[in-house]
Amino acid sequence: MGAVKTKRMPRAVREQQMLDAAVRTFGQRGYMAASMDEIAELAGVSKPLVYLYLNSKEDLFTACIRREAKALTEAVRAGTRPGLPADRQLWSGLTAFFTHTARYPDGWAVLHLQARTHGEVFAAEAAAMREEIVAFVTQLILAAARDAHRDPDLPEREVAGLAEALVGAAESLADWANATSGVTARQSAATLMNFAWAGLGDLMAGRRWSPPDDDGGAAGAQAGATSPAT
Amino acid sequence: MGAVKTKRMPRAVREQQMLDAAVRTFGQRGYMAASMDEIAELAGVSKPLVYLYLNSKEDLFTACIRREAKALTEAVRAGTRPGLPADRQLWSGLTAFFTHTARYPDGWAVLHLQARTHGEVFAAEAAAMREEIVAFVTQLILAAARDAHRDPDLPEREVAGLAEALVGAAESLADWANATSGVTARQSAATLMNFAWAGLGDLMAGRRWSPPDDDGGAAGAQAGATSPAT
Repeated sequence: MGAVKTKRMPRAVREQQMLDAAVRTFGQRGYMAASMDEIAELAGVSKPLVYLYLNSKEDLFTACIRREAKALTEAVRAGTRPGLPADRQLWSGLTAFFTHTARYPDGWAVLHLQARTHGEVFAAEAAAMREEIVAFVTQLILAAARDAHRDPDLPEREVAGLAEALVGAAESLADWANATSGVTARQSAATLMNFAWAGLGDLMAGRRWSPPDDDGGAAGAQAGATSPAT
Repeated sequence: MGAVKTKRMPRAVREQQMLDAAVRTFGQRGYMAASMDEIAELAGVSKPLVYLYLNSKEDLFTACIRREAKALTEAVRAGTRPGLPADRQLWSGLTAFFTHTARYPDGWAVLHLQARTHGEVFAAEAAAMREEIVAFVTQLILAAARDAHRDPDLPEREVAGLAEALVGAAESLADWANATSGVTARQSAATLMNFAWAGLGDLMAGRRWSPPDDDGGAAGAQAGATSPAT
């Protein structure tokens, strides 16, 4: 690849320009509708150069997913400050998340909409990032539970479920915020804190919500369900 | 179509058998890997009959998405009992949701995984159902806020955000519960109540979580953010 003519600009820089153009095009027009001509033009390079560097539309899309996934997970990790009280950690992590998704709406669309809509290979790339974020959130919740000295009351399985709920809520809110004009990252983070933290907060403090005992009827739990607290 | 030979069984019944077989096959093997041969065999009919009734693999998949979407929204509506206190309504609605997704895991996989992974046409079908559920949840939260006489403190936009968060959390938990052995519908509903209700409950009671004032640093909100409470 050393023979590639780079015209003043190093390959790495030019490649990032191509990825910038691709993320914008895929995010705004969708994977199917996006054309390599359009991406090359937006990047200010020839189409053959895009193919030379990134190989195919599929590989270019995969490179976009990986770059955007890395940027998002790094933003969340950098934004979450260890050592703070649990609610402050969650607030700073959520603020970092929504700030990033608001600032890079095309990147978020690539990760959360396009990557999951165009086949299992791309979906698996996005799922790998999601698993990393769920694992990170699980550790945060476990740490918060330890701080609250409530370990025995919060079984590992419930923590895993809480982390899934939190990540799903954040994803859904980010989609909505980016589609709704005038919603700021701070507002989204505050909405999720209002929704989730007092809930998690009550849980950490041992104040569980208790299901009623008399709801075995039409809407009741399925046969064989055990106590929700176990 | 009146000339179709039905061999004792009415067309509607046979069509449902085909859809049963298709949902199972699409849900378990994925849309791409599923073959019409396999679906016809599982339904106990000939492949030409499947094409005659459902036209194409695409149309068959669309019919599956629509049937499963209708069944899920009806289950949630039927499970949510108006007139109960807000937490009981949410509990019964969530229990109905998780009972349905646990009982019909292939239907849930079709709706939430397959439909969103194989192109924009199918994704739009699933999105329409999701919008209906978000609208339903929005009404539940608004009714709860009215009951709590807190209207002025809960702007419509925040209610919309809360509904998105709740639906996203429920979807994510349903995926996780179906992928994790031994998690019952009742446990999933209780986890989400513990996560969300005490949070929503505090909110309805006017006990907001407040962001700290001094977090304008690295993880801080983006420029131009306004107060989270407005």
